[in-house]
Amino acid sequence: MSKLVIVGTVAFDAIETPFGKTDKILGGAATFIGLAASQFDADGAIVSVVGGDFPQEYIDLLISRDLDVSGLEIVEWGKTFFWSGKYHNDMNSRDTLVTELNVLESFSPRVPEAYVDSEVVMLGNLHPAVQLSVIEQMKDPKLIVLDTMNFWMDNTLEELMDVVSKAHVITINDEEARQLTHEYSLVVAAKKIMEMGPKYVVIKKGEHGALLFHENDIFFAPALPLEEVFDPTGAGDTFAGGFTGYLAKTGDYSFEGMKNAIIYGSALASFCVEKFGTERLLNLTSKEVHQRLKQFQNLTQFDIELT
Amino acid sequence: MSKLVIVGTVAFDAIETPFGKTDKILGGAATFIGLAASQFDADGAIVSVVGGDFPQEYIDLLISRDLDVSGLEIVEWGKTFFWSGKYHNDMNSRDTLVTELNVLESFSPRVPEAYVDSEVVMLGNLHPAVQLSVIEQMKDPKLIVLDTMNFWMDNTLEELMDVVSKAHVITINDEEARQLTHEYSLVVAAKKIMEMGPKYVVIKKGEHGALLFHENDIFFAPALPLEEVFDPTGAGDTFAGGFTGYLAKTGDYSFEGMKNAIIYGSALASFCVEKFGTERLLNLTSKEVHQRLKQFQNLTQFDIELT
Repeated sequence: MSKLVIVGTVAFDAIETPFGKTDKILGGAATFIGLAASQFDADGAIVSVVGGDFPQEYIDLLISRDLDVSGLEIVEWGKTFFWSGKYHNDMNSRDTLVTELNVLESFSPRVPEAYVDSEVVMLGNLHPAVQLSVIEQMKDPKLIVLDTMNFWMDNTLEELMDVVSKAHVITINDEEARQLTHEYSLVVAAKKIMEMGPKYVVIKKGEHGALLFHENDIFFAPALPLEEVFDPTGAGDTFAGGFTGYLAKTGDYSFEGMKNAIIYGSALASFCVEKFGTERLLNLTSKEVHQRLKQFQNLTQFDIELT
Repeated sequence: MSKLVIVGTVAFDAIETPFGKTDKILGGAATFIGLAASQFDADGAIVSVVGGDFPQEYIDLLISRDLDVSGLEIVEWGKTFFWSGKYHNDMNSRDTLVTELNVLESFSPRVPEAYVDSEVVMLGNLHPAVQLSVIEQMKDPKLIVLDTMNFWMDNTLEELMDVVSKAHVITINDEEARQLTHEYSLVVAAKKIMEMGPKYVVIKKGEHGALLFHENDIFFAPALPLEEVFDPTGAGDTFAGGFTGYLAKTGDYSFEGMKNAIIYGSALASFCVEKFGTERLLNLTSKEVHQRLKQFQNLTQFDIELT
């Protein structure tokens, strides 16, 4: 069991889908990552910032999942990061209605002393300067996993490339991989990204699954085909949390280990989309996870004998 | 080893992609299906029609693959079906430039006497009335596999639904499955299609792979991630030909058997797109197929022990 540092947003989300809408509910990349990682009893610490308006009950909820929150700064006079979005009928595209950075604007992350020697670092989607600061505070991290998005490619590409060069694993969606490399083929794009630093590249294709690239090896995990996607918010972060949580638990950072980590991440993400926000993750039994892993086996495993 | 009847177009294609363009080359659904099925030494018969302009060397080529062509009608005074298309830069969408039905307009299919007792029937994309006529000529087919497309849903829905009700397996792409059922979720769409007749539903998602549905079971086969898709023409038919060729060879029409058939179909389709038209299929060794099946295993198989 390795220690795990998680940096990312802890936020309020307000979500509208064809199925309904929410008030301000608990959200943020670090929240979803932490809740997913906690499925593996990982010793994880959340490094983030919230305002004085952030309810103690949400903090207690993170603590109840054995997440260390000593790196969760509370700016009493400030307001918590707020995001609001509306999904279209196909659930594959969304409009951002509101983004209020609030306390994130001047966030300077501090990794708790007890966690600077963590083996695994999960850099959730945030300003690359913040991600870089976390890397620099770590003693000798064995596995730095980077999540990012097109916004940082558009606005802070140079800083982002610095972080990319230091990451062991990057998780990125298909459009972002294409944007970053100017290559349409994901195989070619992944090769180019590996030349930028990461030894492992995970390309997320949403409902079409995820690809893992390492040297000349490729592994593919489908998304579980679902009758209904209720709310996709946080699915990518849940995937990342399952992925890093599993790796922190096993300490196996090989290609084989990462294949399994991707299946675990996909399984947890398939739960996330069943309810609004974190609701489904908060009511998830290990038996349900076990059953879903079996579904992934049935979905993908076949028996052709090749000599 | 079961006998296999293949009905579909035998045609001239002229293809333009970002990589180049062809003159009129050998094409057509039955051609690709037949060439793919011939990989399994299936005893297949092609039921189709061509004009007097169709070169004898193309017919000889089909014969050289042990495909029976006694059901390939030659209308001496007529012209062969001609399709021309241009692919866009992403290779996922295309414009049809020319469609000349020619001899297809008055095609009345005739299944050779020696093949009316075939176990497997592959109904390639054609007018549903033609597909229905083939079904009616068969004695006691064990497995009727239907391929179709949105054009027939738009124009001959009633006749198409009659064929659908008689098919054991339907292969259809994701957009067509949605159009046929007015359901966005492919899981829900597949359930509705199973209520229309087919016990097995294969939903093709192009570069995103294919899903097999049967009762409450789902199996997924990815498309092989490729550095370059040179020409997608015929990939769906090659998939169908690999699928039915494998099933005709094994005679195992169970869910487990179909899982393997889908992997074989996907493997052959991954070759098809590497060159223009049928070129790659015509120069394919069993060693190459074997290696590609291994690639599919490496791509999808993982080892999580679940009790």
